[in-house]
Amino acid sequence: MGDWLRDGLFEAAGNVIDGWAWLSGKASAAVVNRAVCTTRNRPHPWSSLSDYTSWQGLTDRSYLARHLPAVDVPVQPPPEKVREIFARQDGHALLSPKSTCLFPAFAQYLTDGFLRTSPKDVARTTSNHEIDLCTLYGRTPDQTRALRLLSSDKGRRGRLKSRMVGGEEFSPFLYKPGTKELTDPAFAALDPPLVDENLPPEQRDTLFAVGGDRVNSTPFTSMMNTLFLREHNRIAAELEARNDGWDDERIFQVARNIVIPIFIKIVVEHYINHITPLPFALRADPSVAWNAPWNRPNWMTVEFSLLYRWHSLMPDAIDWPAGPLAPARQIGIGAFLQNNRPLIEVGLDAAFSGASSQAAGELGALNTALPLLHIEDRAVVQARKNRLATYNAYRVAFGMDRAMSFNDITTNDALAAMLEDLYGEPDHVEFYPGLMAEDRVEDSPLPGLLLRMVAVDAFSQALTNPLLSEHVWNERTFTPWGFDLIARTSKLGDILARNVQQRGPTPIEMTRPGWSYKDQ
Amino acid sequence: MGDWLRDGLFEAAGNVIDGWAWLSGKASAAVVNRAVCTTRNRPHPWSSLSDYTSWQGLTDRSYLARHLPAVDVPVQPPPEKVREIFARQDGHALLSPKSTCLFPAFAQYLTDGFLRTSPKDVARTTSNHEIDLCTLYGRTPDQTRALRLLSSDKGRRGRLKSRMVGGEEFSPFLYKPGTKELTDPAFAALDPPLVDENLPPEQRDTLFAVGGDRVNSTPFTSMMNTLFLREHNRIAAELEARNDGWDDERIFQVARNIVIPIFIKIVVEHYINHITPLPFALRADPSVAWNAPWNRPNWMTVEFSLLYRWHSLMPDAIDWPAGPLAPARQIGIGAFLQNNRPLIEVGLDAAFSGASSQAAGELGALNTALPLLHIEDRAVVQARKNRLATYNAYRVAFGMDRAMSFNDITTNDALAAMLEDLYGEPDHVEFYPGLMAEDRVEDSPLPGLLLRMVAVDAFSQALTNPLLSEHVWNERTFTPWGFDLIARTSKLGDILARNVQQRGPTPIEMTRPGWSYKDQ
Repeated sequence: MGDWLRDGLFEAAGNVIDGWAWLSGKASAAVVNRAVCTTRNRPHPWSSLSDYTSWQGLTDRSYLARHLPAVDVPVQPPPEKVREIFARQDGHALLSPKSTCLFPAFAQYLTDGFLRTSPKDVARTTSNHEIDLCTLYGRTPDQTRALRLLSSDKGRRGRLKSRMVGGEEFSPFLYKPGTKELTDPAFAALDPPLVDENLPPEQRDTLFAVGGDRVNSTPFTSMMNTLFLREHNRIAAELEARNDGWDDERIFQVARNIVIPIFIKIVVEHYINHITPLPFALRADPSVAWNAPWNRPNWMTVEFSLLYRWHSLMPDAIDWPAGPLAPARQIGIGAFLQNNRPLIEVGLDAAFSGASSQAAGELGALNTALPLLHIEDRAVVQARKNRLATYNAYRVAFGMDRAMSFNDITTNDALAAMLEDLYGEPDHVEFYPGLMAEDRVEDSPLPGLLLRMVAVDAFSQALTNPLLSEHVWNERTFTPWGFDLIARTSKLGDILARNVQQRGPTPIEMTRPGWSYKDQ
Repeated sequence: MGDWLRDGLFEAAGNVIDGWAWLSGKASAAVVNRAVCTTRNRPHPWSSLSDYTSWQGLTDRSYLARHLPAVDVPVQPPPEKVREIFARQDGHALLSPKSTCLFPAFAQYLTDGFLRTSPKDVARTTSNHEIDLCTLYGRTPDQTRALRLLSSDKGRRGRLKSRMVGGEEFSPFLYKPGTKELTDPAFAALDPPLVDENLPPEQRDTLFAVGGDRVNSTPFTSMMNTLFLREHNRIAAELEARNDGWDDERIFQVARNIVIPIFIKIVVEHYINHITPLPFALRADPSVAWNAPWNRPNWMTVEFSLLYRWHSLMPDAIDWPAGPLAPARQIGIGAFLQNNRPLIEVGLDAAFSGASSQAAGELGALNTALPLLHIEDRAVVQARKNRLATYNAYRVAFGMDRAMSFNDITTNDALAAMLEDLYGEPDHVEFYPGLMAEDRVEDSPLPGLLLRMVAVDAFSQALTNPLLSEHVWNERTFTPWGFDLIARTSKLGDILARNVQQRGPTPIEMTRPGWSYKDQ
């Protein structure tokens, strides 16, 4: 169990390349195709609209698609009992040997862009179903307009609104100090931030006006958004200097054309390369998708919306770095929410360096921090409301053997016993607890089924982006300068270096320093 | 010129089949692939939003895509002068040797479903960009709900609202007699019919409450919609009888699942087979598209929205058949608008028989009836507002040779002289007049470039419908009975026979009786 991706992908790669040519495009293509073809391609016949296929279900994108049809699972233990599966044991976190906190920081920012299940009705979504950086640009043309500077003045064209604080560029604050009054009436078009209603004013004052309602959830997500805000405005300035006569609209649109593929490059070449157990780097080569039978419109699924609940990646406390305005300190995970002050105090380079300097938690069961534990209940309830099939049904749908014993799920006997106590037999284990209970794949931060499911959606959604399509992916769309910039970007550190006055000594990495692959 | 589709498609077919096997699926597949691959596939890099590629242009489907980028054509004669190119000469219509009036009747009903350019802003559309029978079901879930009976009573489940008139089933009337008051408050959700504001009350009283705002435009379009209304309700009754316990919602949704592919079968197997110059029948085989590189989301183009203005197909007067309530008569084309009384008087079978009994006009220049002539101006203006490239640019984009002389466009010397007088040189001829001025392809009702452009969009839009996709096209989606019904339907007459008390002797055909292909 859990070895499929390693073995299968190594084999796929080995079929087309020599030992020395790990970086070749053909190896990437083979791995991508193998990963995506693990399961049925889109369009999915089922959706969260109804238990049968219908025209509305096939076209109304406010519902979620589904990999497997709806069923009522036979055993549904009380959520607060299932919660025990997730609780961090003995009050200390299992730390990941492979991942830094940059990994959960990016994972959350990325997925908050397209996993947008409505809290009030988990069958519905406000997702655009694309990797479109709506966290930065907003979900709708109206929101995008609200976030833009809209200026025909030379030196300001095509920019997103921003504000300098201590020599650093951030998004504008959303509220006037001490009030719930918007700093800019245009911000009424934005989705209100998903924060506590009773957030203390000193925290509320630090919330940014941004495209995504979850961007303000931690200083890590705000840090990611700030990076892409600066990159957008930097690119707009370059485009303005290089294209005499371009108006505000064109500079904005072409800057966005460039920033979205840069983000997708990070998704594949930094984030996915961290996730895979492969010791060689996959490339984000758009042409892999051009003739692929899996190139079909993206559509978020009920399963994908659930499997990305990775709370266990967060340690109990974040080691927050020192900055010009504050000393280094530890922030408990419960206090690390809905407050951008730590980010503003230390600045962007220190925040990225801090995230890259500490270990993330191990992803999986028995490792969710106490302040986040109650959120796991919601996942269990959400799965039931969406009538997800059992864990074993998904193993089969994604090409794994059915688990015949609890030890087929996990080699941790105590955890296997907890599952048995909850579900009685392996066939009754629910999707989300089963997914998280599995052993992690060697050399990957993810357990086996989760790794398969993430791989399917990651590649098939990232590489089918319209900006990467055959007749769009060219210098005409991005300008020669922009096309080259996209080509030269593959890590978050590449972007950070372009957008801070001084890069510190810490490499900006999701993989911990000194990590080495087991059998290379 | 004009022989490409004949020669090319014969060759495509000949490559894979013997002389006797015209009906084989492989021949159809070869023809479809050849037809679609004449030009660049979707997604199109350009849209009516802006002159450059942008994220909004690639995702905001309220704008139209475009095959070629926007340009300002150098010669723009006054529209009322260009109009002369279209005017029917000497007051009599050129009649088509191949087509009956069933051809324009279906063409209009079909294209009114997805060519929905906003009259006030020709860069925008309200299209769903799918062949979805929104003319029958409405464009939005709210409209669909307004048109449904919504009843849990046995014998009424899953039905669309309808009304019996003289033993025949029609859509309900939209307005109470002599008023502009809706017969049903739910109809406020519908798009108001595009009719004259000062329509006489006796005509207004006959307007149907339907999904499409253009359905009421002629008795022919109302006739088509009535056919599919009856077929929906007939299928709902069958599903209700065959599936004990299915509720209103499921019967409705599954009936719609079945009716849409039936409509698509008619599009390919009746309508497109009439258009092609091939003497063998193409089949609507969904699997052709499953692995095709051209299987990309549909998106209506500015060009497609223009090229389907086929007013010349309408003769000067319609021979309207006799019915129980009215004698046979001729209705001048100017009086054949926005009035369903002729249809209600004679009933559905007589109306279809009448359309199948008379010749359509020849499609092309010099043949638009006087009452419709002023509408041609709008096409010329619409093309200029959307900044369409020249006719010759489209010839090249669709694989034809550039026209070097006006006689490369048309063998009609008088017409060539008119074009020369308007445009000076072939490279300056505008898209719409050039398209319509061409000679018709032998054995097809369409001129050459138009035939190519229609073929690209017809196949690539019909066969990529989500209901025809690989994991949806099965008995589970349609029920075994419904899947078989779809398989057994390929002509409008098949559906009519199921939905009238007595089928008359006239075959329901778009091709005139006695038509024979030239070189077979």
